[in-house]
Amino acid sequence: MKPLHPVYFQDEKLRLIDQRLLPGEERHLAYEDPAEVAKAITDMVVRGAPAIGIAAAFGVALAAREASRLPVPLRAAHLASAARMLKAARPTAVNLAWAVDRMLRALEPRLEEPDLHRAALLEAEAIFHEDVQACQAIGRHGAALIPDGATVLTHCNAGALATGGYGTALGVIRGAVEAGKKVRVFADETRPYLQGARLTTWELARDGIDVTLLCDNMAGHLMQRGEITCAVVGADRIARNGDTANKIGTYTVALLCREHGLPFYVAAPLSTIDLAMESGDRIPIEERSSDEVTSIGGQRFAPVGVKARHPAFDVTPARLIAGIVTPRGVARPPFEQSLPALFL
Amino acid sequence: MKPLHPVYFQDEKLRLIDQRLLPGEERHLAYEDPAEVAKAITDMVVRGAPAIGIAAAFGVALAAREASRLPVPLRAAHLASAARMLKAARPTAVNLAWAVDRMLRALEPRLEEPDLHRAALLEAEAIFHEDVQACQAIGRHGAALIPDGATVLTHCNAGALATGGYGTALGVIRGAVEAGKKVRVFADETRPYLQGARLTTWELARDGIDVTLLCDNMAGHLMQRGEITCAVVGADRIARNGDTANKIGTYTVALLCREHGLPFYVAAPLSTIDLAMESGDRIPIEERSSDEVTSIGGQRFAPVGVKARHPAFDVTPARLIAGIVTPRGVARPPFEQSLPALFL
Repeated sequence: MKPLHPVYFQDEKLRLIDQRLLPGEERHLAYEDPAEVAKAITDMVVRGAPAIGIAAAFGVALAAREASRLPVPLRAAHLASAARMLKAARPTAVNLAWAVDRMLRALEPRLEEPDLHRAALLEAEAIFHEDVQACQAIGRHGAALIPDGATVLTHCNAGALATGGYGTALGVIRGAVEAGKKVRVFADETRPYLQGARLTTWELARDGIDVTLLCDNMAGHLMQRGEITCAVVGADRIARNGDTANKIGTYTVALLCREHGLPFYVAAPLSTIDLAMESGDRIPIEERSSDEVTSIGGQRFAPVGVKARHPAFDVTPARLIAGIVTPRGVARPPFEQSLPALFL
Repeated sequence: MKPLHPVYFQDEKLRLIDQRLLPGEERHLAYEDPAEVAKAITDMVVRGAPAIGIAAAFGVALAAREASRLPVPLRAAHLASAARMLKAARPTAVNLAWAVDRMLRALEPRLEEPDLHRAALLEAEAIFHEDVQACQAIGRHGAALIPDGATVLTHCNAGALATGGYGTALGVIRGAVEAGKKVRVFADETRPYLQGARLTTWELARDGIDVTLLCDNMAGHLMQRGEITCAVVGADRIARNGDTANKIGTYTVALLCREHGLPFYVAAPLSTIDLAMESGDRIPIEERSSDEVTSIGGQRFAPVGVKARHPAFDVTPARLIAGIVTPRGVARPPFEQSLPALFL
């Protein structure tokens, strides 16, 4: 099976697989306007912390192409404006700001160059390829954590579709499979967007990995029955102390793991680790539209007029996390020491 | 607003509100054949432990009408056969077997009487009315547990629609509201059948009670933020030691409550308490079709061919339960003592 890349640049355009349509349809959309890229991130055409970082990097590259047609003194302001817009597209994942800032840093000394656009594209491509390599390294390090014959629970989609390719949490699973281990996956459906039901099952089945779909409320029962070995999830932002923001429901999975003595792992590239954030208390948690909770795929099932909440993420306290799998190895508690050490 | 009764007998027929169609449509179906009643229970036209008990009691009454037209020596076998079929309709809720056995006990001495059918109907009506009264008593006892200004989390639908009327968990909430308290409800949507999203929101909004819909994976986050006061749920079977089988996901709610120091209450009539079952380990847990997990309202969203699990219930260990609200008062731990005492 051909490797899966949800974000890529081809024929002068940014291409995104429209993840709102999967698994029913695999449609690739093309973007030339950074404002449209920001809207695609907000609307979840592309989602997953590393993938939205890569998409935003290409968004800056598209802005650099526009800037390269402007007089030199106007270029910085044009890039800054696009950067602000892209960073505001979603608040929780730190990779978005990380990628945009890296692009700006790379372009700042080259604003006067005629091939500003080429330089921007090279930097965005570098962010993309480094992310795929980071995921593969996460897979190699994480494989050791998964026992042969394991049943691994995952929540949301931290797979190829959430990254440049290969995935973080699903990278760990792919790494274990490539290491010759027999692995079975339980995928939480992950309401309201059903990333688990629609995306995780789709990309694992595509790779021939044994996957079974669960509703988000079933893992506790299956753990009581001894049917789950461990859990691996991705992350949208990891604070310096290890507190981890990830898709709503992750905290509950971690708590269930502790109750049943099962290890709970987080897998993420270094760009997800926000050393400037002391703890998880201050990570901004996006509240999305309640319409996403009262309906599924445009079909409303709750009574008209009923209120709904939609916090899109939660924060798992570091004390519930057995290890954070990164491209530089597995960070173990105390994370205040092990996380900064990864950057040395 | 007129009281809501999902099960009732009118013009010689059993009537069920088709709960599969709510909240979009309120359709009342009519039944004259006990086999059709059993099928309606299996297919979840009617659901909720007390409500399926009542429906099954009327199912026995319909069988008694058939039996009254048979020669006396054939009547017992006819009733026994209908009873077996009705009891097999769903395995977890004990109220089903309880109601059928109570009907058989009442009819056994009257098998030779010409008005067997009338006697059967009177007994089924008694089961129905006693359940409504039990729910109202649960409401009076439970009201004291709910602080003024509380935000109460509930899971699935243990409301009027799950009982003869008024509800068990929602009976506690109605009792608190009738006692003049300000109460806000968070309703878990309760995948895969969405009883919370479709039924709990509908019947509470119908009564003017403030209700907000959550996905099943959100309560942990809201508890972390201090937005929830306590949880109240219904039950499908309560073992002698207090272990409680209820809708899948209930165990996770109970665990979240303990983690956050919030009381977790169960509300149920005495017919839900199975003193013959020593502990929850042996309560049969129904596994339903995986199609119910891979689609919503007939709309499939998971990839074709993907496996899914569908345990319909889980067991909450007694140690996580602060109290069991019954028509005879609130049983407190140790339940081995407080539960049998309710029957004295």
